[in-house]
Amino acid sequence: MSLLENIESPQDLKALPVDKLDDLAVEIRHHLIETVSVTGGHLGPNLGVVELTIALHRVFDSPREPIVFDTSHQSYVHKMLTGRSKDFATLRQKGGLSGYTDRGESEHDWTESSHASAALSIIDGMSKAFKIKGEDHRNAVAVVGDGALTGGMCWEALNNISAGHDRNAVIVVNDNGRSYSPTIGGLSENLGRIRSQHGYDQLMQEGKKRLKSMGWVGERAFDALHAVKEGVKSTVLPTEMFPELGIKYVGPINGHNVGALLHALSYARDYEGPIIVHVVTEKGHGFAPAVNEPKDQMHSTGAIDPVTGVAKGKKQPGWTAAFSEELLAAAAQRDDIVAITAAMAGPTGLAPFEEKFPERFFDVGIAEQHAMASASGLALAGMHPVVAVYSTFLNRAVDQVIMDIALLKMPVTIVLDRAGVTGSDGPSHNGVWDMALMSIVPGMRIAAPRDGARLRELFNEAIAVETGPTVVRFPKGNLLDDIEAVDTLADGVDILHYSDVDVDSDTDTAAETAEGEEIPSVLIVAVGAMSTRSMRATTILEESGINVTVIDPRWVCPVAQSIVALGADHDLVVVIEDGIMRGGIGSLISEALEAAEVDTPVRHIAIANYFPEHASRGEVLADNGLEPTAIAEQINQWVEMLVEEETEGQF
Amino acid sequence: MSLLENIESPQDLKALPVDKLDDLAVEIRHHLIETVSVTGGHLGPNLGVVELTIALHRVFDSPREPIVFDTSHQSYVHKMLTGRSKDFATLRQKGGLSGYTDRGESEHDWTESSHASAALSIIDGMSKAFKIKGEDHRNAVAVVGDGALTGGMCWEALNNISAGHDRNAVIVVNDNGRSYSPTIGGLSENLGRIRSQHGYDQLMQEGKKRLKSMGWVGERAFDALHAVKEGVKSTVLPTEMFPELGIKYVGPINGHNVGALLHALSYARDYEGPIIVHVVTEKGHGFAPAVNEPKDQMHSTGAIDPVTGVAKGKKQPGWTAAFSEELLAAAAQRDDIVAITAAMAGPTGLAPFEEKFPERFFDVGIAEQHAMASASGLALAGMHPVVAVYSTFLNRAVDQVIMDIALLKMPVTIVLDRAGVTGSDGPSHNGVWDMALMSIVPGMRIAAPRDGARLRELFNEAIAVETGPTVVRFPKGNLLDDIEAVDTLADGVDILHYSDVDVDSDTDTAAETAEGEEIPSVLIVAVGAMSTRSMRATTILEESGINVTVIDPRWVCPVAQSIVALGADHDLVVVIEDGIMRGGIGSLISEALEAAEVDTPVRHIAIANYFPEHASRGEVLADNGLEPTAIAEQINQWVEMLVEEETEGQF
Repeated sequence: MSLLENIESPQDLKALPVDKLDDLAVEIRHHLIETVSVTGGHLGPNLGVVELTIALHRVFDSPREPIVFDTSHQSYVHKMLTGRSKDFATLRQKGGLSGYTDRGESEHDWTESSHASAALSIIDGMSKAFKIKGEDHRNAVAVVGDGALTGGMCWEALNNISAGHDRNAVIVVNDNGRSYSPTIGGLSENLGRIRSQHGYDQLMQEGKKRLKSMGWVGERAFDALHAVKEGVKSTVLPTEMFPELGIKYVGPINGHNVGALLHALSYARDYEGPIIVHVVTEKGHGFAPAVNEPKDQMHSTGAIDPVTGVAKGKKQPGWTAAFSEELLAAAAQRDDIVAITAAMAGPTGLAPFEEKFPERFFDVGIAEQHAMASASGLALAGMHPVVAVYSTFLNRAVDQVIMDIALLKMPVTIVLDRAGVTGSDGPSHNGVWDMALMSIVPGMRIAAPRDGARLRELFNEAIAVETGPTVVRFPKGNLLDDIEAVDTLADGVDILHYSDVDVDSDTDTAAETAEGEEIPSVLIVAVGAMSTRSMRATTILEESGINVTVIDPRWVCPVAQSIVALGADHDLVVVIEDGIMRGGIGSLISEALEAAEVDTPVRHIAIANYFPEHASRGEVLADNGLEPTAIAEQINQWVEMLVEEETEGQF
Repeated sequence: MSLLENIESPQDLKALPVDKLDDLAVEIRHHLIETVSVTGGHLGPNLGVVELTIALHRVFDSPREPIVFDTSHQSYVHKMLTGRSKDFATLRQKGGLSGYTDRGESEHDWTESSHASAALSIIDGMSKAFKIKGEDHRNAVAVVGDGALTGGMCWEALNNISAGHDRNAVIVVNDNGRSYSPTIGGLSENLGRIRSQHGYDQLMQEGKKRLKSMGWVGERAFDALHAVKEGVKSTVLPTEMFPELGIKYVGPINGHNVGALLHALSYARDYEGPIIVHVVTEKGHGFAPAVNEPKDQMHSTGAIDPVTGVAKGKKQPGWTAAFSEELLAAAAQRDDIVAITAAMAGPTGLAPFEEKFPERFFDVGIAEQHAMASASGLALAGMHPVVAVYSTFLNRAVDQVIMDIALLKMPVTIVLDRAGVTGSDGPSHNGVWDMALMSIVPGMRIAAPRDGARLRELFNEAIAVETGPTVVRFPKGNLLDDIEAVDTLADGVDILHYSDVDVDSDTDTAAETAEGEEIPSVLIVAVGAMSTRSMRATTILEESGINVTVIDPRWVCPVAQSIVALGADHDLVVVIEDGIMRGGIGSLISEALEAAEVDTPVRHIAIANYFPEHASRGEVLADNGLEPTAIAEQINQWVEMLVEEETEGQF
């Protein structure tokens, strides 16, 4: 590892002799596999961009010339070349390296979001600013996957970049034919045609086969594949589409040939005006277990064996699997159920549906807006669409849910996976906005199942709704133990735990302390997966002699009337949720109480209104007071405060 | 008007002899000009699609074959041909015809949103459903403007439609080279090239000149222009871009030649697979005052003289103009200020900026996502972008504001025009979601000026913010009279009216009734333009002997600490706002009080969580209890309720 060790900045990289760059690539791949196999992370994408990233930092003058990665999960190599290769053991851990670019880590990192298709817009803005400031020879570079190009933002940006004939925006398309899974749509077919014209597909296939037949043997296999590709001369030629938009096109370039990349990128650097460099790469390149992984070439992996690629640790049955099974069962019963994903069939649990009902399955690309609006079209024509998406990516389609689905009262079931805190993927991956955003949609119903049994129930209730949209949201990770309700109220609210409070009576129901002071009774409204933590906190609270009722609304929006009635019969309402406090379910319940002129004090334990740094899910929840002990302590404090006020005659 | 009078449905249209269709077009234009000159509405766009709409309803089998208009402000002709021509005097009025397609009006209307670029996604969904159901010969048709094609949703949809080789999605591009104003970007340039290849631009120019030289003389001028165009043979030819995406391309077709349109659309109807029909139209066609209107060809107009096109009624100085002036003044002082619009430079007040500082002005097309993300890019490179957009269209860019601006703490000033209730443009045009949506963005500051003076002040405060985004939001319409504050608290909250309550004391400050009962004191928090109505309501309330303090927070998010302190010193807090109640500023203030453990009851007067039907702004506000008398009555009731509870010892 003698080369990589000595690279602290792009200047060091530039000082290397060109003939050492292939050796450096080998070292980087080694380091990637060794470290990511322990920490987990986006292995496949980073293995694919080793040579490309080396070439980018040789050619461009970062950070003066920004290199913006889209979505930046493929920025590990970039991090290694900008002074962070020694820190990779801390990847995605609290206080350690982020899995994405991070402005706090390095001046070479310009953006932070993990949402795709935004980089072209960012460099459009940058190149506009450089032009205004008269910095005519300062490039702004975006590295964007072919998958991200299916997102509408890229189109909006291309349309604008193409109009800026005198601006230096460099778009590097990292085309591996796959985003998470094979890229879909006409664009992809077109890129595919370009690729195959030049025999790349065949070469890739050949290389892959060789690699396979030889087994994976480190440098040797890489070199063998590399040698195959050396034979292909990179060409500079226009294709039809991009020039029609007024953007210079260069490619396709062999993305594993450093020389070809240096040549093409240098041309792009010196070209006056917007330019696209089409680079063909292989996801997982140089690591046979990744290349041969049929689903997504180890797009994102947990800890694995660094030689065989076999996953370490056992997978517990998760929320996604429960949804997946239930969807499959429902679709077998009902012909009108269709399923939509935005390029994530595997992670959202739609893969089995795709296999069983291919004609009713639609992967729309990284295109959440279209996912929602086309779902409306399907519903208008009589189908019941189930759109499965990560909670964080729903932010992209707020307008479409409001205007194209809710305004038309279309029955669309939106299934939000990774809702709440996700943690290790950092601030932009948390699914903490969904309840605040979706509860403002007129007519929206939101279900937050507390466990697997409830997920199955609520999903089936959701697809039975015939007018207007529903959301079913559940967190990342393993299923929690089922919590049986001790009672279910008429409007579907589950009582998980009764205090001694008689909910039907108007009489004051609070307990008394040994000194005869009244102890306020507490209604805990546990949202979804927070039920387990709420129940544990309740155990602690009862030891302090506090009467607690714990309810799980199951459908958290709209607010069930029984919650208002229960609120009126308790002295304090505490809402516990794994979404943001601002505008969340706690605030929704406050509004419901206020509308009913019930002025029982309401308190919230929820995610603060900030962007949590990457850390484990548990760590972020703990930072926000969502550990059972912390919940109990907080409620205890509030109760004591009320007792004091009571003493002063205020309640 | 003998022809139009007898058309109650597309069947009647189909029964007409072909040689009567041009006469029908003349009648429709007459009817459009006569009715819209009285009611106001989208005159220019509808004049441009008369022949196109006739041809669509001759060829396709609506409603079995859906015709989806994008955005549907150009659906007036469609309404006339589907049994609604007699109702046009009621256009955009409460209880009358909607200015957009409306599912409640007709089975021929499939969608309702006024947001652009969604129609292709809708028909993608429909065509998928038809395929699943085995309805192989059922077309789904979208009519989309060239302006709407600049929106990313269209790209996402085209990418999906192109993959559906066996689905019958018909995309009719209504290309007039202008959305609100000239369409921008590379796509537009490409469409322009296609157009000019076939000499259309020249012909259009020629026809326009003739029309001008003759003056506008009804049918004669139309016929003259029409005759010119008859000479142009419509052609069926591919261009490069769409076939590259795998979509059959037909065009360009003369959009004012019924015969050519019938020919092309019949071909499209019978074609198996997705197809684009590129139709070239002239906005305002057949009405010289519209054609010659340089800005936007009478895109949307108030009442006008039906012959001269001159606007009736005087324009009052509005919010937009005040912002526009202030921006201009600021930009003269600061080189770093840039302005961004999403295809609406005129309506958002950016036109003077564009004229004065063209190099710092960016029209990004109908592309709000890109507007925000490219603003982030500009800010990353040292500029201070001002993005001016209608409040309702901000819904499109929620994710970009969160992930590309707020996460990076970029100083971007978002100016929201038409915030609050807009009324006559119907449910999807109201700007009632902005405060709920933006207040969940970490670090966001929101200003809601109550009058012109405050708009100028707050805008200047906003552009002085160096870290993180700001929103300045103001309503449609005329400026309100300035309300001078009687006091301004340290954290910027304006006291507009003092009750007798001593805000610095802990003592009980409520007044007493004649009978010696305490009368609770009320704190009214007036959000922005609701200040005037709140002050009027206060006058009424004080006649009932109720102590009222009225404050205007100016910056409504985050909540100023002085509001919490004032809340603690009053017996009731009422928040009055012209945004949705759910998650609005009222709920934000509730949360702030709850966080401070201040349990003063909070009540909300705001827009309910529904989609208001089109009506005047005043009518919609009244429907939501936002008239001064209604506000006073409601507060009176709440106060009485509190007095009763007090009597029962509850406060």
